[in-house]
Amino acid sequence: MTYSAPLADMRFLLREVAGLAEVAQLPSCEEATSDLVDAVLEEAGKFAAGVLAPLNSVGDRESCRLEDGKVVTPPGWSEAYKAFAEGGWVGLGLPPDYGGQGLPKCVATPVWEMWFSANTAFTMLPQLNTGEAEAILLAASDELKATYLQKLVSGEWGGTMNLTEPQAGSDLAAIRCRAEPQADGSYRLSGQKIFISYGDHEITPNIVHLVLARLPDAPPGVKGISMFLVPKFLVDADGSLGAQNDVRCVGLEHKLGIHGSPTCAMSFGDNGENSGGATGWIVGQPNRGLEYMFIMMNEARFGVGVQGIGIGERAYQQALAFARERVQGRDAVSGAVGQAIINHPDVKRMLLTMRARIMAARALAYTAAGWFDVARHSPDQAAADKARRYVDLLMPVVKGWSTELCQQVCYDAIQVHGGMGFVEETGVAQHYRDARIITIYEGTTGIQANDLVGRKLLRENGATLRELIVDMRGVAAELAVAEGMQSMAVRLDEDIAALERALDWILANGRDRLAAVLAGAVPFLHLLGLVCGSWQLGRVALATTRQADGDSYGADYLRGLAELARFHAHALAVQAPALSAAIVGAGDTVLESALP
Amino acid sequence: MTYSAPLADMRFLLREVAGLAEVAQLPSCEEATSDLVDAVLEEAGKFAAGVLAPLNSVGDRESCRLEDGKVVTPPGWSEAYKAFAEGGWVGLGLPPDYGGQGLPKCVATPVWEMWFSANTAFTMLPQLNTGEAEAILLAASDELKATYLQKLVSGEWGGTMNLTEPQAGSDLAAIRCRAEPQADGSYRLSGQKIFISYGDHEITPNIVHLVLARLPDAPPGVKGISMFLVPKFLVDADGSLGAQNDVRCVGLEHKLGIHGSPTCAMSFGDNGENSGGATGWIVGQPNRGLEYMFIMMNEARFGVGVQGIGIGERAYQQALAFARERVQGRDAVSGAVGQAIINHPDVKRMLLTMRARIMAARALAYTAAGWFDVARHSPDQAAADKARRYVDLLMPVVKGWSTELCQQVCYDAIQVHGGMGFVEETGVAQHYRDARIITIYEGTTGIQANDLVGRKLLRENGATLRELIVDMRGVAAELAVAEGMQSMAVRLDEDIAALERALDWILANGRDRLAAVLAGAVPFLHLLGLVCGSWQLGRVALATTRQADGDSYGADYLRGLAELARFHAHALAVQAPALSAAIVGAGDTVLESALP
Repeated sequence: MTYSAPLADMRFLLREVAGLAEVAQLPSCEEATSDLVDAVLEEAGKFAAGVLAPLNSVGDRESCRLEDGKVVTPPGWSEAYKAFAEGGWVGLGLPPDYGGQGLPKCVATPVWEMWFSANTAFTMLPQLNTGEAEAILLAASDELKATYLQKLVSGEWGGTMNLTEPQAGSDLAAIRCRAEPQADGSYRLSGQKIFISYGDHEITPNIVHLVLARLPDAPPGVKGISMFLVPKFLVDADGSLGAQNDVRCVGLEHKLGIHGSPTCAMSFGDNGENSGGATGWIVGQPNRGLEYMFIMMNEARFGVGVQGIGIGERAYQQALAFARERVQGRDAVSGAVGQAIINHPDVKRMLLTMRARIMAARALAYTAAGWFDVARHSPDQAAADKARRYVDLLMPVVKGWSTELCQQVCYDAIQVHGGMGFVEETGVAQHYRDARIITIYEGTTGIQANDLVGRKLLRENGATLRELIVDMRGVAAELAVAEGMQSMAVRLDEDIAALERALDWILANGRDRLAAVLAGAVPFLHLLGLVCGSWQLGRVALATTRQADGDSYGADYLRGLAELARFHAHALAVQAPALSAAIVGAGDTVLESALP
Repeated sequence: MTYSAPLADMRFLLREVAGLAEVAQLPSCEEATSDLVDAVLEEAGKFAAGVLAPLNSVGDRESCRLEDGKVVTPPGWSEAYKAFAEGGWVGLGLPPDYGGQGLPKCVATPVWEMWFSANTAFTMLPQLNTGEAEAILLAASDELKATYLQKLVSGEWGGTMNLTEPQAGSDLAAIRCRAEPQADGSYRLSGQKIFISYGDHEITPNIVHLVLARLPDAPPGVKGISMFLVPKFLVDADGSLGAQNDVRCVGLEHKLGIHGSPTCAMSFGDNGENSGGATGWIVGQPNRGLEYMFIMMNEARFGVGVQGIGIGERAYQQALAFARERVQGRDAVSGAVGQAIINHPDVKRMLLTMRARIMAARALAYTAAGWFDVARHSPDQAAADKARRYVDLLMPVVKGWSTELCQQVCYDAIQVHGGMGFVEETGVAQHYRDARIITIYEGTTGIQANDLVGRKLLRENGATLRELIVDMRGVAAELAVAEGMQSMAVRLDEDIAALERALDWILANGRDRLAAVLAGAVPFLHLLGLVCGSWQLGRVALATTRQADGDSYGADYLRGLAELARFHAHALAVQAPALSAAIVGAGDTVLESALP
């Protein structure tokens, strides 16, 4: 149940695939030298393994409690958070102006991956700070920035995102929470929110809630939602904490996983006649709350995709260690007894599948992190625009596909353990349970797929995906002339062709048969993810050929990566034509079929 | 969280697909008239829905406890079991000579499916009785039969199977538990067993343990394992209970699911110097214990496959009910608000996928149950032999494939629920947790696949599968000339061709490249399951065309079945060529790849 940061994989992908050297050339990314990045990763790896990872099962076992209206987090949570914040980790990727470290996203990403591997339930707390800080940076007044931003970036105060209501889950248009403007420019909020992670806790002295609500004169639907900042304790002019606000946690969910993260039902302004509402301040313009959320959406979705990679890595490490240790059965060919189960072909296939999936998703995520950096910092407008297009197109894939892969990885991790995997003390079942939320929150896989097909492909008639396919074809062409990689090139070409068949069908039918197209949206997300994974592992394989003998990675390591890419092509990517056929062939049957 | 037995599906499959009428012609199956079967299913459905289903979440929440060395089962368990046994349900499929109802397996199967849907953790208790009764019938002395069989068939006493030891899980050759022969013909057993379901409980006054152990002079490995019967309380000559035996539960596992079923660590003969071992009697011949286990294996594996169908059905019902009730979002085409989520194409696709998988696995299982009956009772030796061959070939598929499908069904059931699916009170997560053991116990999916490829295909050079493929081709030919079913015929033909490609490769390489073949064993199990599912749903679709207008099934129901078969062909079975390609193409890469 230990965790060891996969530094070799992270360093290889950052340098050879995600373009760390190019990112470090960008304005305000110059600090990200190879040496500094190595030092950051190593330090983070120590903290993840030494402090956060041991608390993971504690959080699962002890869970959170609601006592006298206050949330108590698991033993060790507060101390770990204090050390985390003091290490400067909360603001790792946030701007230096407000106390952040300002590291490029491609450097911050493997670090966050480590936190998620080590302890996802814990890490949701600082992750909320970064999301909230970005929202405030994007839209809030200078006064709000001055009061709250540094506290959030440093981690001194906690943050939350209050979106969901009982009748408003995937459909935020149905939000009912109300905000009444006051003479002093503040607002009084009232209403109920559910599924609010870290809605209350004792870890930080204040908690800053971002809340979506409606003004009295707001138009109905998505265009009438505004964003508000509601602190748990009001902040006096000198920055000290004042009166307690009328916002409280009224219940905790009993969940399948992430027990260490309190999931709160929150009540705003229900303190009877004395209240009149919780005091808040508007963030940005009235009725533009959802617009701001959408701007931050790519970052948020990316973060959940990285959760998938992190949890998957942890489950994989545990399964690999078990498979090397557990002796059971005899060699199928020689009959030799006393075999570690990793020597059984089926167990090895499962482990390779897990690793191939993680590495494919990780290569895509780190590459995408590099695009974020280019989009944000590149002085080359064309390069920045292209990176932005790729980020927009592929964030639903990084989120939806990486989180779905994670489920399969955690599933296999239990299977490798056999009966021990079903026993909670073994610890591997926790990953399976924890992971189950990540294909749901921050937009279900279905929502991601609708976004991909409806908002991304159809609106621009597939232009960016066509552009991406040209890049993919380039990798296939390089593989075709690389030693020993021809069969991967053939596979990649076939899989790209399958992707194009599905794309052509979607574009041809998106107007007149939209429902049939949307019935294939999730299979299309899987298809695009799979082909992106092959493309990225093709880039990984090519990168192994560019390394000089005896370089820092080691020949065995490099050979293993090339073999992994080959395995992915022939064992997994081979599903691409089937996915394409299902998209094209099954849409109408979904609509025509009736369920009794 | 209610359950309603799917009587329409069960009746249709039994009559139109599994050959109930033909089974009812067999000797000692004559009682199974259509009217009687309807009455049995209806009565079972009431008991499942009214008594067992409401206890399912109680068992999950309350779990089992070990108090003063005794296992206490969840509230309501004892009362429900008493009513279950009094209803004659324990011996439903067991021979009348010992108090069973003697119903054919194809009738007993839907009844057991209901119990598993309603409450899998509970149902493991009577399921153990039937397995143990079959072992005693197969091999035990007349004296043991006289003393124990009627009590087990009636359910008055409970049964257990004691196989696993810490070092002997999938590999029973590693069993160490010892049995010393005594002068009086009895044996003294000592050793530890783990993962023993219902190893102790207060529900029945006695528990009859079947235990695998080694005699002092036994050869090593699988050929030195004998089977013993060890009662919790010794039985006096007059059948009354005597002294307590030296066998006890020393620990309960804390598990991911099936909390209502106590999973015991059992200790035999550890009562210090006073003991000398637990008193037991040998079942059958020395050193033939594993052989007996293998004879019962088809029945046992079939039973776990039916668990998969049952749990999947329950999860599906819950998801369907939620999707019809939950209003969220707007219609993708018309923009109309207030949509029940079942109207969203992606949600409907998930529900259709769940139902198609369940119906495919159910049709195969019921058909296979009919083969059991034919194999056991048919006076036509050729028909009996063919049925036996099919049972032998396909039991690893019914077990391995049905249980794997169940995981995907339970996964989708959570996904349909969105955030509510992650909240334990919703109840759908329990199915996901409960289901996770069924791909592991009674032989993991990997063990099933090795049995299929190694013991079934290679030993007879694929003969029975070739025979089965001829039957499948016959269904494709019928579909080709049935109105509106041509595209299903094309699909089935292509999928059978994919199956044949994989089979040819396996047979060609099984001798010289066995490890590479075994690396593809699980994908082959999935492939064969998928094509069997298409074959069976093709039979279902054809059966709908044979019904007269206005018959008892109803035109809408029949149309829905045909549409479901078409959906399965185009959305799911389409994966067959990809699985085939992965089997043929990835075996060597599994062996060649190294994991860092």
